[in-house]
Order: sequence, then structure tokens, then C-alpha cells
Amino acid sequence: MSNAYREMWRDLGLDLERHDAFLAALPGAFSEVFLQQDNRPAGMAYFDNLLGEAHGRRVEEILAHKRAGRLVAGTFCVFVPEELILAVDGVSVGLCAGTQFTVPAGEQILPRNLCPLIKSLVGFKLERICPYFQVVDFLVGETTCDGKKKTWEILNDYVPTYVMELPQRKEAADLALWEGEIYRFKEEIERRSGQKIDSEKLNAAIKKANARRAALQRLYQARRADPVPISGKDALLISQLAFFDDPDRFTAQVNALCEELEDRIARGEGVTSKGAPRLLVTGTPMPLPYWKLHHLVEKSGAVIIGEETCTGSRYFAGMVPEDGETLSQQVKNLARRLLDINCACFTPNTSRMEDILRLAREGKADGVIYYSLQFCQTYALEARQVEKALREAGLPVLCLESDFSEKDAAQLQTRIEAFLEMITS
Amino acid sequence: MSNAYREMWRDLGLDLERHDAFLAALPGAFSEVFLQQDNRPAGMAYFDNLLGEAHGRRVEEILAHKRAGRLVAGTFCVFVPEELILAVDGVSVGLCAGTQFTVPAGEQILPRNLCPLIKSLVGFKLERICPYFQVVDFLVGETTCDGKKKTWEILNDYVPTYVMELPQRKEAADLALWEGEIYRFKEEIERRSGQKIDSEKLNAAIKKANARRAALQRLYQARRADPVPISGKDALLISQLAFFDDPDRFTAQVNALCEELEDRIARGEGVTSKGAPRLLVTGTPMPLPYWKLHHLVEKSGAVIIGEETCTGSRYFAGMVPEDGETLSQQVKNLARRLLDINCACFTPNTSRMEDILRLAREGKADGVIYYSLQFCQTYALEARQVEKALREAGLPVLCLESDFSEKDAAQLQTRIEAFLEMITS
Ligand code: SF4
Ligand code: SF4
Repeated sequence: MSNAYREMWRDLGLDLERHDAFLAALPGAFSEVFLQQDNRPAGMAYFDNLLGEAHGRRVEEILAHKRAGRLVAGTFCVFVPEELILAVDGVSVGLCAGTQFTVPAGEQILPRNLCPLIKSLVGFKLERICPYFQVVDFLVGETTCDGKKKTWEILNDYVPTYVMELPQRKEAADLALWEGEIYRFKEEIERRSGQKIDSEKLNAAIKKANARRAALQRLYQARRADPVPISGKDALLISQLAFFDDPDRFTAQVNALCEELEDRIARGEGVTSKGAPRLLVTGTPMPLPYWKLHHLVEKSGAVIIGEETCTGSRYFAGMVPEDGETLSQQVKNLARRLLDINCACFTPNTSRMEDILRLAREGKADGVIYYSLQFCQTYALEARQVEKALREAGLPVLCLESDFSEKDAAQLQTRIEAFLEMITS
Repeated sequence: MSNAYREMWRDLGLDLERHDAFLAALPGAFSEVFLQQDNRPAGMAYFDNLLGEAHGRRVEEILAHKRAGRLVAGTFCVFVPEELILAVDGVSVGLCAGTQFTVPAGEQILPRNLCPLIKSLVGFKLERICPYFQVVDFLVGETTCDGKKKTWEILNDYVPTYVMELPQRKEAADLALWEGEIYRFKEEIERRSGQKIDSEKLNAAIKKANARRAALQRLYQARRADPVPISGKDALLISQLAFFDDPDRFTAQVNALCEELEDRIARGEGVTSKGAPRLLVTGTPMPLPYWKLHHLVEKSGAVIIGEETCTGSRYFAGMVPEDGETLSQQVKNLARRLLDINCACFTPNTSRMEDILRLAREGKADGVIYYSLQFCQTYALEARQVEKALREAGLPVLCLESDFSEKDAAQLQTRIEAFLEMITS
């Protein structure tokens, strides 16, 4: 990244030295994981560049929006109804939380026995190396898990953190509570932006977010082909970037890429040979810049054809109906779509098993990797039921637990290779 | 315990061999922790005997109730409104979960990175060594923490487990949701017992539970004296047994003991010399048969004068108003009292700091031990704020994390002694 941005970073209060150290490690990792792939789609250039400019041009853009009076909100979870932020022409940024680099800093104020995602996100703030953390007007947290729920109380000492209460079941009373939370969030956005949200603005925002969902669904559809026209790690990178980029531009670029992929499919062209082992990944989120699992799997000759995660299908599955005419109908529609997400924070969460089985079938997966981040209790506990459902359906499953460090890479590699051997023999 | 109960245990489906091994370890531990104390109140004899007969006479009693058609419900949390169980003349039993003995069994089906309390409780069922687990008609779980919330789904394969959704904030919408959950629980109890709950029955149950609360509050009041008339571990044992015993009998016995303690106070008699260092404990629950922390502290010459825990003040603080005339008013009263409990599962939970400061002040504590079970994320994360509030109030605080094993006993002992030295010097 160009040094032209140093002034901006300094103005944002970044710790330039630590920031340099952080950035220094990225290009090598990126080149090893992404650039050395065979036959990458040309359309990936946009996303490579977007990532390359993540601390540069995209920050500049958002700063310009901010100067023009637009609200900038940071989020960490697919349950936050971004539509309300978009309705006031605000910028919604899903913050990074996927690197070991910031975990030690997070551990200075958080217990060690905590999900690395949470430690990494707090570490980004404490280390002052994330321009987005510096630029946001406020953060939007939620009560999805104990770890995040209680971390917002701590993080609020560093940056204003608004918390949405996600209920824990999916009954009528929960839907009512959640609708109330969406109204409360709407008021917060109106208060912070100084703009009223009416049904027209909200409807436009719903359409914008739906268009992005449709593009990501189209990308997932392309991944069902054999040979697969795009690697799992490229697809993961795209959905990671969905949380950052300008929605309209992003949607157009994903659609352009999909055209290229659909051409490839028509020609029978892919990034692997036909018949390469196909895996579905299910489990905890993989925020930027985390690519470890995908890289290990795809180095071993298999390909990942889908992610039933929050940085995967849970983010874009389902559409918000666009026919809501009143605000109250639109809020109901938003609430319903969100409560249809099958996160392990709900009890029971049996529909998740159906989602996984459907995604595996649609993607013609030969096996499933159940991946959970260390100390994530909800996903670790749900593994048992998922494993059972998959075995009953005759689908091999490998359960892995890991963190953001590279310490266990060799061990994971061995387990993945043994698994692949098992399913291909 | 007499061998006369072997037949009962066999009929209950206990694993007699494992059960023998479990029971064999208890008397020694009990004698070391409890019987060797100086100048114990005579009134402890009832509680010693109750514990000694925990797998014997008390089970026999409950079995007799069951045969007479009374409902038997197992609980794990102070948020379960026992009043509704008592209203149908049912038996509510708080199940044991405080021993390393059953942790390895629990780990066979649960992740290792999980609170030992949860692993121990599941282990009791898998090992088939808890007569109560065998005797209950059903369990009542709640969504207090991720670990328990998701464990109920697994435990339900072994014993019917009903789950109450506790909300995560304390606003009007949460109170409404929680009231709904109490109604739903009422219906479940009515269905299972075949009895209607009317306002008269519920009012009688509220009075019964309030009387038990009043007795336990009186006991805590006695602990404020210097010298303290009863050790912390005896007081802990009593509140642990509150979850098991017949409420009326238990209340009468606690009141009788309190008379003895009040006499002691009048005479200036205690279990320690006047001026012994006084500590308040705050944190996670200490279910039977867990006494490690109290034993270590009191062996070191200090005395514990209160527990801000779920096996302490959170269980009995606050009364349910007895003037509710209609069911709906009574349910509201129950809901309010329960949501007044300051568990770390709520966000925010700032009133807990006030509770701790008040209890420390009332009990003339020289310091506070913040105790959390390993992998309990809510209490571990809340420690920071509690520590800050206590330091600001000039109260020394020692943060300890532990489990049910004895592995760390020597290390804890050293830290406790250093802390005592610090506060008494
Ligand atoms: S991965 Fe699990 S523990 Fe981590 S933030 Fe997500 S739900 Fe919470
Ligand atoms: S101690 Fe913590 S983790 Fe354990 S059951 Fe209680 S709230 Fe859950």
C-alpha cells in the first residue's frame, strides 16, 4: 500500500509503527494463499485490489462520506439489520477480527479462555491498527453469545457500543421482542444520523441489500458445478469483502464475476480437475484476514464448495420481501428474515441440520468439515447433533477446532489429508 | 450410609459399583472439611444428617411423594420459579453438579472447554450415580449461559428437559417475555401434574418460598457479627441443602439454628476470635459437594461472611410480594423478583457491583474473593468491572479461577495466604 496514506492514518490516530508491522505481514500471506492459484478467474482482480486498498482507498472513501455527514457504523454479526444503516445513506462496515496478530493485545483485558475472534477484534482497537475502528461513529453489538455479549460492556469504554438483544428461541414472543429491538435500533440510527427513516427509504435499502444477497447466491450457485469454476478461498474472500465494500459497486462486481464463472461452467472449465473431492465447511465465522482452513484444504487437492457460516451462506440466504408497504410491515419482514438464520445461539436450532444437508446435497459435497473456533461453546456443543445428522445421511464429517495462530497448521493438514483419503478411497 | 438403601438404588437404575465408589470418598472429605471445625453450632447436626442421608432417607421421602402422585422436578438455576412446582404440591430438587468425580464422564459427550459445573451435572446422569437424576419426572433448564443452553439439547436425549428462555436485558420487553415464559412454565406444570394452579395455591407457594428466603436472610444477618457465630463453610452447606430439602422443615431448622446463632452473638461467642479477617466471596455457583474454596480460606484463618453467588445471596435475596390477588399479578411479582437477580448473564449488569459493595459493607468484609469457574465466560468477563468498582471503593480483591479438581489447591492456598497477609498488614 502506498505511503500516501500515512497522513490519513496518523490523523485517524493509528499506531503507525504497529500498523506497519501488521501490514508488512499481509502481502506475503496473500500472495501465497491467493495469487499462486492456477487459472484464477480474471474477475478476482477487483477483489484483490479491494483487499489491497482496504487500509487505503476504501478508508479514504468512507472518510469522505463521513465528512459529508453520513453515518458510519461498525458491525460484527449478520444479525445486525444493515438495511437501517443503508436507509439513511450510512456506511456499514463489518470489522476485522480474524488474525492472531491482535490476539495478545486482546488478552490484556479479556480472559484467555475466550473465542479468538473476540480477542482479535478487541485487540484491533487496543493496538490502534484498524482504520475502520477509528473511523466509525459507533459499534453495533448483539447478544449472540456470552463472549460477545459481555465484551461489548468492556469495549464500550473505548468506542460507543450499542447492543441489540437477539432472543434465544424463535417463538412468537421472540419475534415480538426482536421486532422491538429493530424499532429501537431504527430510533438509534435516526438519532445518530439526524434523519427520519420512512418506508420509501427503507424499501430502497431492502432492495439494495437483497441485490447483494442475490449476487452472492449466484456465486454460490456457480460453485455447484464440477469442475468448480472458482476456488473456495476466492469465494470466501469475496464474502469477507461484502462486509466492507460499497454495496452497489460490490454487487455489480460479483455479478460480473459470475458471468465469467457461468461461461467457464458452460465450457466445462474449472480451477480443479473434474471429480476433485468437494467439501462443505460449516461452523463459526471466518473474518478477514483468516484463510487458514481453506488454504490447507485446497492445498491438499480438495475444493471447498460452500460455507454454512456467518461469513458464508448465513449472511445472504433468504430475501427480505420487497412488498412491505408500511414501515411496520417492513420491520416485520426484516425481523423474520433475520430470525430465519440458523445460528447455534438459538435453542433449539434443528433447522441448521437441514441447511447443512441441503447445502451439501446442492453442492454435491463428498464430505463436511465442522469447524469451530476454540472456546466457542455454542458451536462446539452443537457439533454433536450435526455430526449425528450427517452420519445418518451417509455424509462423512471431520470435526476441527482451531484458532487464528499457525501453531496447529501441520496437525490440521494431517487430519485433513487423512479425511480426504478416507472419502476418496 | 446404610446398606438398607441398596435395593432402592438398584430399582432406580443406579450403577451400584460407581455409586459405591462415589459415596466412599465423601465421608472422609466431609469429616475433614466440616466435622473438625472448632465450636460448631449444635444446630448443624440437622444439616450434617441431611447431607449424610442425601442418597438415603431424602430419596426415600421423594419416592414416597412420587408414588402418591406428586410431581418431581429437577432444576439447576435460581431463575426457575420453584413456586409453581410447590403450588401443585410438587417436589423441586436442585441437582448436584459440584464434583470432579463426574467430570470425565461429562467430557465424553461435551467439549472439554466447558464449565466444570455443566460437565459434572451431565456426568452424574451418564454415570448413573445420582438418585435424584433418576427420580425426577423432568428437568427444567434455562438459557442463562451458552454452555447450559446448548447442553439442555443434549441432555434431553437422556431425560426430558424443559427449557425456560431467560432474557438478556432487564427492559420492559424483557419482563414481558419473561412473564410469558412463566405462564408457559405454569402450563407445563399443570399438564405434567394434572392439577390447575389457581391464585390461592400460588399464593401459598409464594409464602412457603418467602419463608425459606427469610430464614436464609436471617442466617446471613447472623454472619455479620464479629466474631462470626458460624463458619462460611457451614453457611454454604446450608444454602446448598436448601435446594434439596423439604422447604417447610428446612425453614424451621434454619430458624432454630439462627436462634442459637443469635444467642452466640449476644454472648459474643464465635467460631473464630474477634477480628479474624473477613472475606466476601462473589462469583459462580458452588453446588454440592463443592467446598474447596471455603475450606482453603478458612484453613488459613480467615472467615467467609457471605457469598454473592447463586448458591448464596442470589438465591434468597428479595421477597415476592404476597399481596398479589390474581394469578396475573402473582406472575408479574414472580417475574419481577427473578429479573432483579443480578446474574452476569444480563447485559448490562451494573447492579451486581452495588450488591457486592453493599454485602461487603454489611458484612464488614476486609476483602473480596472473585471466584469463577474455568470457562465461565460471563463471570470471567464481568470480573474486570467488579474489580474496578471494588478498588474504587478501597476494597482489596483477589480474582481466582478454578475447577472442581484438587490439582490447584496448593497454588490457590498460596495466593489466598498472600492476599490475607496483604489485607491484614
Ligand atoms: S465464533 Fe462463537 S464465540 Fe466467537 S463470536 Fe461467534 S458465536 Fe461468539
Ligand atoms: S457458572 Fe457460568 S458457565 Fe457455569 S453454568 Fe453458571 S453461568 Fe453457565
